[in-house]
Amino acid sequence: MLIQPGELLAQIDSPADLKKLPKDKLVQICDELRDFIVDNVSVYGGHFGASLGVVELTVALHYVLNTPEDQLVWDVGHQAYGHKILTGRKDKFHTNRIYGGISGFPKRSESEFDTFGVGHSSTSISAALGMAMASKYKGKNKQQHVAVIGDGALTGGMAFEAMNHAGVSDSNILIILNDNCMSIDPNVGALKDYLTDITTSHTYNKVKDEVWKMLGKLSKFGSSAQEVISKVEGAIKSAVLKQSNLFESLNLRYFGPVDGHDVNHLVEIMRDLQDIPGPKILHCVTVKGKGYAPAENGNQTTWHAPGTFDKVTGEIFKKVPSTPQPPKYQEVFGHTIVELAEQDERIMGVTPAMPSGSSMNIMMKAMPHRAFDVGIAEQHAVTVSAGMATQGLKPFCNIYSSFMQRAYDQVIHDVCLQNLPVVFCLDRAGFAGADGPTHHGAYDLAYFRCIPNLVVSAPMNEEELRNMMYSSLSHEGPYSIRYPRGKGVMPEWRTPFQQIPLGQGRIVKEGEDVAILSIGHIGNYAIKASEELAKEGLNPAHYDMRFVKPLDEELLHEIFGKFSKVVTVEDGCLMGGFGSAVLEWMMDHGYQAQIKRLGIPDAIIEHGEQEQLHQLCGFDAAGIADAVRSLAEVAKAQ
Amino acid sequence: MLIQPGELLAQIDSPADLKKLPKDKLVQICDELRDFIVDNVSVYGGHFGASLGVVELTVALHYVLNTPEDQLVWDVGHQAYGHKILTGRKDKFHTNRIYGGISGFPKRSESEFDTFGVGHSSTSISAALGMAMASKYKGKNKQQHVAVIGDGALTGGMAFEAMNHAGVSDSNILIILNDNCMSIDPNVGALKDYLTDITTSHTYNKVKDEVWKMLGKLSKFGSSAQEVISKVEGAIKSAVLKQSNLFESLNLRYFGPVDGHDVNHLVEIMRDLQDIPGPKILHCVTVKGKGYAPAENGNQTTWHAPGTFDKVTGEIFKKVPSTPQPPKYQEVFGHTIVELAEQDERIMGVTPAMPSGSSMNIMMKAMPHRAFDVGIAEQHAVTVSAGMATQGLKPFCNIYSSFMQRAYDQVIHDVCLQNLPVVFCLDRAGFAGADGPTHHGAYDLAYFRCIPNLVVSAPMNEEELRNMMYSSLSHEGPYSIRYPRGKGVMPEWRTPFQQIPLGQGRIVKEGEDVAILSIGHIGNYAIKASEELAKEGLNPAHYDMRFVKPLDEELLHEIFGKFSKVVTVEDGCLMGGFGSAVLEWMMDHGYQAQIKRLGIPDAIIEHGEQEQLHQLCGFDAAGIADAVRSLAEVAKAQ
Repeated sequence: MLIQPGELLAQIDSPADLKKLPKDKLVQICDELRDFIVDNVSVYGGHFGASLGVVELTVALHYVLNTPEDQLVWDVGHQAYGHKILTGRKDKFHTNRIYGGISGFPKRSESEFDTFGVGHSSTSISAALGMAMASKYKGKNKQQHVAVIGDGALTGGMAFEAMNHAGVSDSNILIILNDNCMSIDPNVGALKDYLTDITTSHTYNKVKDEVWKMLGKLSKFGSSAQEVISKVEGAIKSAVLKQSNLFESLNLRYFGPVDGHDVNHLVEIMRDLQDIPGPKILHCVTVKGKGYAPAENGNQTTWHAPGTFDKVTGEIFKKVPSTPQPPKYQEVFGHTIVELAEQDERIMGVTPAMPSGSSMNIMMKAMPHRAFDVGIAEQHAVTVSAGMATQGLKPFCNIYSSFMQRAYDQVIHDVCLQNLPVVFCLDRAGFAGADGPTHHGAYDLAYFRCIPNLVVSAPMNEEELRNMMYSSLSHEGPYSIRYPRGKGVMPEWRTPFQQIPLGQGRIVKEGEDVAILSIGHIGNYAIKASEELAKEGLNPAHYDMRFVKPLDEELLHEIFGKFSKVVTVEDGCLMGGFGSAVLEWMMDHGYQAQIKRLGIPDAIIEHGEQEQLHQLCGFDAAGIADAVRSLAEVAKAQ
Repeated sequence: MLIQPGELLAQIDSPADLKKLPKDKLVQICDELRDFIVDNVSVYGGHFGASLGVVELTVALHYVLNTPEDQLVWDVGHQAYGHKILTGRKDKFHTNRIYGGISGFPKRSESEFDTFGVGHSSTSISAALGMAMASKYKGKNKQQHVAVIGDGALTGGMAFEAMNHAGVSDSNILIILNDNCMSIDPNVGALKDYLTDITTSHTYNKVKDEVWKMLGKLSKFGSSAQEVISKVEGAIKSAVLKQSNLFESLNLRYFGPVDGHDVNHLVEIMRDLQDIPGPKILHCVTVKGKGYAPAENGNQTTWHAPGTFDKVTGEIFKKVPSTPQPPKYQEVFGHTIVELAEQDERIMGVTPAMPSGSSMNIMMKAMPHRAFDVGIAEQHAVTVSAGMATQGLKPFCNIYSSFMQRAYDQVIHDVCLQNLPVVFCLDRAGFAGADGPTHHGAYDLAYFRCIPNLVVSAPMNEEELRNMMYSSLSHEGPYSIRYPRGKGVMPEWRTPFQQIPLGQGRIVKEGEDVAILSIGHIGNYAIKASEELAKEGLNPAHYDMRFVKPLDEELLHEIFGKFSKVVTVEDGCLMGGFGSAVLEWMMDHGYQAQIKRLGIPDAIIEHGEQEQLHQLCGFDAAGIADAVRSLAEVAKAQ
């Protein structure tokens, strides 16, 4: 259902239309854009607070820049709803994040205005700089290149790498720092404090006070001295706020801080900045959720992506199920780590800016001296955990599967080469759902499996997650546990801890003709498939392998001794994943079974509900049943 | 052969012995330590300039700190020779970097003084912070934690992530910035300029001049004004140099810059700093190669790891071969990119701080506006390349295989998800040799193979490297080419370019009973193996597959149609690598051959000559021959 935009917005199908508006209409267009976002997200869900916070920035940028010739890169991109609406996607906006609909993030294949696909944090300065260097090389000196990056994303190391390069690049790049003191959770770290400091002029005031105090002692100068003081003040202000500013240190001309919600002022500033060549940064202070009171004044983390809500009352809709539901794996992790940490003082918690998403916030609240949000800094999160582990601690480092790609070298080089006992919990493994390909945890089984010393495990249910966390405590090396976004299968999940011996799988169901070997939560589809197949008189065996590495060799000998038809099931890439591990093992041990591997094919899988994507890739219950049927036919024919 | 240390150094077997020396002997011990390093490296080779640059720092640190209880982390670690010599490894130092000998880098398994294994850049602050957090948690408030990091390593993003966390951590960590303006090549970027600026007080002088100029206008104050000015100057100095310093911005107390070669002063400062709690940074200015004139005054890049040399004359020994030798793959890359770029204006070159190591310096010299060193910043290097690619350029991003682990997310998220035509050249793929496990390029075939859209190729010789580079130009997506450190096999390597169709392998040699499928340079061992086997009457076929992805399916149908015994050979990890790809393909296409996969096993392989390690892992010529023999026996028996 298409939601009606306001009167002015209705006429805007591209930035060219926006530019036709007189400047005195800009406030109105901002209001209409904001309303349109509220109207849509309240009904269809999606990211919310971030886009509201940049409505004025978005309008000012497209009003001033000559997009798409000028290049605009949104960092992370969940704040780009306004950008999408102004660049020809207003009429498709109700399909946002829905299977087959538009993406929740900027995407090159979707629009020429989306200059760079985003999703993960801190990439925008590098991307915009690459574009700016290309323009310089081609002699396109007038072309503008703008990266819009949040203060949270600025803590990601690659943003710093990019600024270090930009500062000496002599390229035409403008970094807009969208400073709202928030990641998804409140931003943390020294940089945040610094930005608050320069925004509120604390440093300047401190220096000024110091000079005043010192000059006060020279009272004999009387009023003339005041004149000196006043001029000196100006010089110091210039010195402290400009010459020695952190960004100026990196040779980026610094402008601001400015009010990021004053659209007319923003338009003026951006016009001025277009005439200033070279790398520069504009510091805009914004409020996440701006203009929608419940989001602006309420819990900004909740309003990051609230789901659907009543736009008048601000009440977030929650489905109240009639029967007890299984918990989310996230919640099981969050409660279990506290439960374990109460008994084992070695346990520490580390999250890179995902306290609420991972449920590490439960431990951060219960044990603030033992659980840490280190900022958007996956690399650091892994190596700071390694440092702790050298001192006999047991850090649990919780990182989403797709974000773990950011810390791949640190996992290899700082943890696994040294065989340090860090426990990696990979949340959002498998398909992320509506967030799409940038967030799918598709590759971790393959990219972790090849690392020596690393245990690679995945629980099929809540109890296994708890027991794997428990079992990792007695393992003397690195141990990874991957689990999906969303619900498990056990409403009564808080079971007593039991040791799972390293690399031990289990038999879910005995059977004949065909064996299903599953890894992780996705094994529950195999149970359903078996139920369906039973109606047809088929009775496959089912093994929950639990470990991709080390494999349960005893169990595999049993399986391949008995079965010549095997189906492997994983919600990870087929190239080099779990099925591949089973295949390698079989060949190395001289068995000759026929193996059908189900998993994520070698292709980019777009956004959609998890179940839709499982079906698409053929490893939902129906897909598993089909694979078993076809192998069983062959078996019976032989 | 053990080289004799000087009189004082001979008595030092641990830092405890060092501490017994009176302070007035410290200069002498520094001299002896420096001599011992020169004596050893000139005879045995190894890293050189970096360790000479930190002799005084090393002595001062072990003199003041209570190591190993106090935790000392060396970033990268090639500067830690002095540290190794002072901590009980003097008598083994001549085995440095030799197979079975001590490692060229700090290594936890080697000594309790090596608190953290290093090799890759920029990890030290995170690791030391993790240790400091552990100490704080345990209430060990007196324990010291020191990270020694170079100005080059500081450009790596994770160092910034760590500082952002350290600044708010209230942990007892001291960062020693070893500022010598060098990575292996000269350091680049805005941060380097800033460090030079604060070292030489440019900013301070600029501000001072401004204030003086302004106050000069107020001349009526006469000499009293001078008094004001002098006091104001002090205040400004404090303001500019301390309060608004880049590191102070991140809430790290900044001390320095100090002369990193004045050992007595360093001892005093470090004693003072021990009493100052919280995160802090000491800025030491040092000279790489200090105290050995040819290194100090000569080309510092050459003297980073010069090989053996005459310590008296400073002449670096070069073996002059009697016959024309094949070039290094690095040189082939360096000359070929220039040759191609002369014909194709889309080509750009990007290297993260490895211009000489990768030979990108050839293009940087020939085409300075088209080839860039972006600093130790692999993540940024990949994404800035992606940004260029969006503008129709063809960036060649050259990164060592093991360093590519640092940019894994950027390869997936910024390049491959968007199918952007970046060409990745992975140097040092396979075993790095003497640098050991941190530098082995063992995993890339596995971790690249699972990424959609990415072409994964490896040349068997110089001509193939050239032709793959040439062929990548007409491919519309990401294309990776991996090759080893060191020499190829073709003295006459500058052959005319020929297009290699995407995914096309080639027959090296027809044969019977057994087929050898090799990928990359290592295929030359298979040629030798075939020659040996011919003497025994065995005649295996040999295929140079050239591509791990896409595989040459036509060729594979031919191979599996003909052979039921196959050997795969790769200098990459067996878990999920090339052999695994062949196995997957075979199973998916219904063939039932017996495949013996040769490659790097699932274990940490230590340092040694490349050939030694190939032999160790069983994929040198003898290993391949053995594999063929055993399969041929089975084939003949059947």
